[in-house]
Amino acid sequence: MFLCIIATLYYNEDPKPILFASGITGVVGLVLFGLFKNAPKDIGKREGYVTVSFAWIFFALFGSLPFVFSGHMPHFADAFFESMSGFTTTGASVLSDVEAMPKDILLWRSLTQWLGGMGIIVLSLAIIPLLGIGGMQLYTAEVPGPTKDKIHPKVKDTAQRLYLIYVSFTALQTILLMIGGMSFFDALNHSFATMSTGGFSTYNTSLVEASPYIQYIVILFMFIGGVNFTLSYYAFHGKFKRVWENEEFRSYLYIIILFTLTITCIIALQQYNAAHQIYSIESLFRDSMFQVVSLCTTTGFASANYLTWHSAAIMLCFMLLFFGGSAGSTGGGMKIVRIVLLAKHSYLEFKRLIHPNAIIPVRLNNVSVSEKIITNVLAFIVIYIIVFVVGVLLMSFLNYDFETSLGAVASAIGNVGPGIGKVGPYDNYAFICDSGKYVLSFLMLCGRLELFTILLLFSPAFWRK
Amino acid sequence: MFLCIIATLYYNEDPKPILFASGITGVVGLVLFGLFKNAPKDIGKREGYVTVSFAWIFFALFGSLPFVFSGHMPHFADAFFESMSGFTTTGASVLSDVEAMPKDILLWRSLTQWLGGMGIIVLSLAIIPLLGIGGMQLYTAEVPGPTKDKIHPKVKDTAQRLYLIYVSFTALQTILLMIGGMSFFDALNHSFATMSTGGFSTYNTSLVEASPYIQYIVILFMFIGGVNFTLSYYAFHGKFKRVWENEEFRSYLYIIILFTLTITCIIALQQYNAAHQIYSIESLFRDSMFQVVSLCTTTGFASANYLTWHSAAIMLCFMLLFFGGSAGSTGGGMKIVRIVLLAKHSYLEFKRLIHPNAIIPVRLNNVSVSEKIITNVLAFIVIYIIVFVVGVLLMSFLNYDFETSLGAVASAIGNVGPGIGKVGPYDNYAFICDSGKYVLSFLMLCGRLELFTILLLFSPAFWRK
Repeated sequence: MFLCIIATLYYNEDPKPILFASGITGVVGLVLFGLFKNAPKDIGKREGYVTVSFAWIFFALFGSLPFVFSGHMPHFADAFFESMSGFTTTGASVLSDVEAMPKDILLWRSLTQWLGGMGIIVLSLAIIPLLGIGGMQLYTAEVPGPTKDKIHPKVKDTAQRLYLIYVSFTALQTILLMIGGMSFFDALNHSFATMSTGGFSTYNTSLVEASPYIQYIVILFMFIGGVNFTLSYYAFHGKFKRVWENEEFRSYLYIIILFTLTITCIIALQQYNAAHQIYSIESLFRDSMFQVVSLCTTTGFASANYLTWHSAAIMLCFMLLFFGGSAGSTGGGMKIVRIVLLAKHSYLEFKRLIHPNAIIPVRLNNVSVSEKIITNVLAFIVIYIIVFVVGVLLMSFLNYDFETSLGAVASAIGNVGPGIGKVGPYDNYAFICDSGKYVLSFLMLCGRLELFTILLLFSPAFWRK
Repeated sequence: MFLCIIATLYYNEDPKPILFASGITGVVGLVLFGLFKNAPKDIGKREGYVTVSFAWIFFALFGSLPFVFSGHMPHFADAFFESMSGFTTTGASVLSDVEAMPKDILLWRSLTQWLGGMGIIVLSLAIIPLLGIGGMQLYTAEVPGPTKDKIHPKVKDTAQRLYLIYVSFTALQTILLMIGGMSFFDALNHSFATMSTGGFSTYNTSLVEASPYIQYIVILFMFIGGVNFTLSYYAFHGKFKRVWENEEFRSYLYIIILFTLTITCIIALQQYNAAHQIYSIESLFRDSMFQVVSLCTTTGFASANYLTWHSAAIMLCFMLLFFGGSAGSTGGGMKIVRIVLLAKHSYLEFKRLIHPNAIIPVRLNNVSVSEKIITNVLAFIVIYIIVFVVGVLLMSFLNYDFETSLGAVASAIGNVGPGIGKVGPYDNYAFICDSGKYVLSFLMLCGRLELFTILLLFSPAFWRK
């Protein structure tokens, strides 16, 4: 947080917000550190859940301080929403005039996403699998076969290697965006928001007015942000075959290609029907691809308003709010690997009905997946839907209309940012009431921490010795 | 079909539509009967699926003939939609002026639902369990424990006993409605549509203008229509304890009470906020209960327009489109027993995360349910959602708006009738294009035959020897 003082000094802005916020955060941090210095270091599963959950809650709480002190968000609910949206890499914003904000506050806003993304990579590749949440034990060392894709035995070591890739990609994107004519500040902020699949922009109109070159660069890095970082590690070391052999990666790629082409056709037809000609197929293809990659990776940048598209294209975009990136990426949502397992399991159910006594296992990367993991995955998806339904009910109790409730909640749990209805890609969340902002913040947190991490804290069984 | 000639003669109407339609149906039936008289009688599972599927398709095809010949539905798509809606006990109609129709055609329209309901009782209590679809082997003799609830070993015998109850309830309701001042014709038609949880009314405004007494009678019989007919059989024989011991029945009751009270509170508050007083709490309670029971049992009668209610009440109504009645009733939807198993399984997933090595089975009626059945149930619900999503995509490709697509498709798969958006309880399906009507007809058929019966016919594995 204190690092944002560089922007304060460079742009000659009021240093008080950053100084006060980082001062308070630092003091509280030091006090807590002192208090718990001698606490036992070997923690169990339950302590794991509590630590991870409260880490994100405290991030969001203290992360909201610069927003509060800046004076641009007098309501605490706004500041908390913005901060939670950042640390969960959602990208839903309450700001209608982003460009009017002080640069140091904008930098902090982008940094929350980047830091949140860093946390998620380690969480999803090192901690969630150990906790066995939602079938993600697929990614632990205990599971034999090529699916484990485990780089290094120690969490700390793994984290360092993944962070190196994360930082390198961010640096590379910043340079490529600057080549496209972006200022260093804007390029850095957008790179922070891309690699973390966050989606906070420093422009009022997101990337709508950006050049095709910049849009393609952002598409590329959003795509990378949605790939399992273990695979990026292999790609870095030239092992492209291992990347291609990964079924989740291939499915991720196919989904994006399928949705991009379908939506391109739909909006091309729509334009033809309205204007009796198609102005530029490249522009339609780019619009389609940008929105598909942005929604599927749960980044949430916009280069076009998909709510003006044909009903079918809107519906496809709404579907993408649920898919999410790959497991082990910074993307949110249900995760592609779970969608793949779900689809395979459902397909095999037909075979099982015809041959009721045959044992037909689901296979991933040519290895059969245990029944236990399938049950975990199905339970995860069911609970995802239950949380979605409860969220939608809460929002409609607050009197938001059908589409807005569905859109805002799907977007919050999936950590996307834009939704449908009144929270489309050209809108913001400023009009949502305080209760609504807290509901959505809670849903972002649930979605980001793979639901169970948070929901377990509400289960009586968890607190029973 | 030919029986409708009684109404033709009594009301002195044109006999041609009924005579032509029943003549063609009779001749085709006799020819087919002659052709396949010597076909082998012992059929396997595959033949079971094909027979059931084509039975409903032929019912709908030949059932549409009276509508076609009546001249009131010149488009075949309309007549087919109405007939399929009848035989699947959905109750979605293309008629805007029901009262202008000849009485014999209206009687046939109600009869399609009543006959469809008869088919469904036997199908869901005797055939679907044998086929092992969606966890419904719970209801077969092979499963030990009290869940089997099997009345008699032979399908034919079971059917006869259940039909006796079905006919008795219909007769009782007809008498009770006539006591309330309905004509015999209207009482009979509404009873046909209630016991089958169909929902075709002979009034243009459904039951909106009916007296409170009639509305309560209809609520009672809709509720009975949504109960497993095996339990009705026990109740008939005074074994009320066995009914109460059934977990699905209790859950069904609790869901209806919970939704009724919640919606009553919401609409009472809404009225208070608008008019600063509540006119009649009984009327609000009745409106709420009627709509909840009508939607939950998938009947689809209307006594109020729930689309004018507060967002939260609309959302709760939309949720009910998915629930459905009990397994073994004439209700459609996912079925309460599956919702119960789903909820229990999801809740236990939290316990399993805390105690990963413990084996914690799901229990229903105090008996543990096998992992296989749980997997079947989860697969059923997942495929229900997949079919729903595909249906919604198809409807939005036909350019129907977000709410209408969601509402029409949820209503069609759930065999409810009214939906949300432009297909609310006060609307009809006349404006839907022909392609849309065929899509919805197909979805009604899928939903009615527990998805797998129809979908299996599209699976290559099914046709492989």
